[in-house]
Amino acid sequence: MRFFLPSLTLLFPGLAIAAAVPSPAEIVVQAPDSAWHDVSPERLLVMKMGDGGRVVIELAPEFAPVHVANVVRLARSHQWDRGAIIRVQDNYVVQWRVHDEAAPLPKGFVTQPAAEYERPLAGLDYMTLPYPDPYAAQSGIASGWLVGREGEEIWPAHCYGVVGVGREMPPDTGDGRELYVVNGEAPRQLDRNLAVVGRVLEGMEHLGALPRGTGPLGFYADPRQNVTIESVTLAADLPASLRPVMQVMRTDSPSFHDYLAARAARRDSFFVRPAKGVALCNMPVPAREKK
Amino acid sequence: MRFFLPSLTLLFPGLAIAAAVPSPAEIVVQAPDSAWHDVSPERLLVMKMGDGGRVVIELAPEFAPVHVANVVRLARSHQWDRGAIIRVQDNYVVQWRVHDEAAPLPKGFVTQPAAEYERPLAGLDYMTLPYPDPYAAQSGIASGWLVGREGEEIWPAHCYGVVGVGREMPPDTGDGRELYVVNGEAPRQLDRNLAVVGRVLEGMEHLGALPRGTGPLGFYADPRQNVTIESVTLAADLPASLRPVMQVMRTDSPSFHDYLAARAARRDSFFVRPAKGVALCNMPVPAREKK
Repeated sequence: MRFFLPSLTLLFPGLAIAAAVPSPAEIVVQAPDSAWHDVSPERLLVMKMGDGGRVVIELAPEFAPVHVANVVRLARSHQWDRGAIIRVQDNYVVQWRVHDEAAPLPKGFVTQPAAEYERPLAGLDYMTLPYPDPYAAQSGIASGWLVGREGEEIWPAHCYGVVGVGREMPPDTGDGRELYVVNGEAPRQLDRNLAVVGRVLEGMEHLGALPRGTGPLGFYADPRQNVTIESVTLAADLPASLRPVMQVMRTDSPSFHDYLAARAARRDSFFVRPAKGVALCNMPVPAREKK
Repeated sequence: MRFFLPSLTLLFPGLAIAAAVPSPAEIVVQAPDSAWHDVSPERLLVMKMGDGGRVVIELAPEFAPVHVANVVRLARSHQWDRGAIIRVQDNYVVQWRVHDEAAPLPKGFVTQPAAEYERPLAGLDYMTLPYPDPYAAQSGIASGWLVGREGEEIWPAHCYGVVGVGREMPPDTGDGRELYVVNGEAPRQLDRNLAVVGRVLEGMEHLGALPRGTGPLGFYADPRQNVTIESVTLAADLPASLRPVMQVMRTDSPSFHDYLAARAARRDSFFVRPAKGVALCNMPVPAREKK
């Protein structure tokens, strides 16, 4: 009589340790196509840097619809073209602006948006994460975004690569003509204090490696140090041949579940002691370009 | 009759909110000299980059004495001179090595150190932090270092700017001829898995802004991309005129207490909603060069 053995680890529990356990990166590479969804080109900004680098940003209209619409209007009226990175503060943010902040504003632009710093949970898929979070009563993933939660309100967390809207002192909320991206340890004290409009899906290395500014708050001390942005275009406005098809891992997929478990407790062979959890911002939702 | 008023807030409690509340950065700038202690030059490595940048690293013999002693021996025998940064993985680590890994080892060098990944709490000053930590049952500050704790064991947290020893697969622990520094969101899954030997006190911006490697794991695909390290010297071995006097804020000082409170709940005027806590790695212990 022969048995089909569903899992050797049922017979030899110790074997799971000895066998090759995939790392989070391996889980991502091995994930089937069904674990990914295409991001709509209406939600993607393609930023061409002056040196040829490409940065692709997924917009977050779920969280800051008015600010996001402003950013898209600026892209469609080419106000980001010949824009400039003006601030790089080490372990904090990279900040950039439109070409000319005195230029006429595009039709429909909202000059004083309300504070879109949080939103109701209702209307989004939400999954609670089981690890404690120093910044929020609860944290989780809402329709693919890493969020904090308090009661029925949620907000996007300021993780590495998250893009927000620069502003002056409150009650100003910023109008979208200056944006920033997190380039270091998650400055989650900014959560619920600024409008998050997106996240970098590709090309963060171009922004992360920029020279740090030597002026106060990391602004470039001399405007000649500013880094040129060649253009920012909504992917939907690009010809098909130039339009990147970006995919984000479905957070309801078995692959994402495995990825999360591996991020929270590394059991691949490099590790001698798995962690007991993982910080919200240390489990970036995997993204890739569809080939 | 005239009164000396020790504090307006005693008379008008609401005034404290309306008045200017200092930011963490302002608290650091305003801290009196008594809030700082000089770091011994026996604990400082001065790394000169090929482009002239200076990186100053405080060593952590409390946590990994054998690995630290190896690193110091390599410095004293000039094996770091004309060393190379060989790996820059975005949002993870920058890694460098001695000039020639086949060179004879200095006298006293330990080729296979034991795993110095954690240590007993006893013997260090320890202060518990009140915020939850996804990686450790408890977190705190031990003799000025940000640490996780479980029972009576503590270990340094892999925060931005923390320096550790690269290694092969276990049981190898690395011998100190390859080091790395965290350049993004704290990869705390590395805690208790690698030997931490120090932290960058000055010049992290030189390492953070390096071009990202395009090979697997962020290694430079072509060795010609390697970034040259001119020299690494123990500060105690430098002539007094070239020896930086670095200071670290005393974590038992009132200034540090105020800094921590401000990091955990920003009440300066830019913020509309203070956070309810702060992550261990988002409260770097302030450091400065003594002028």
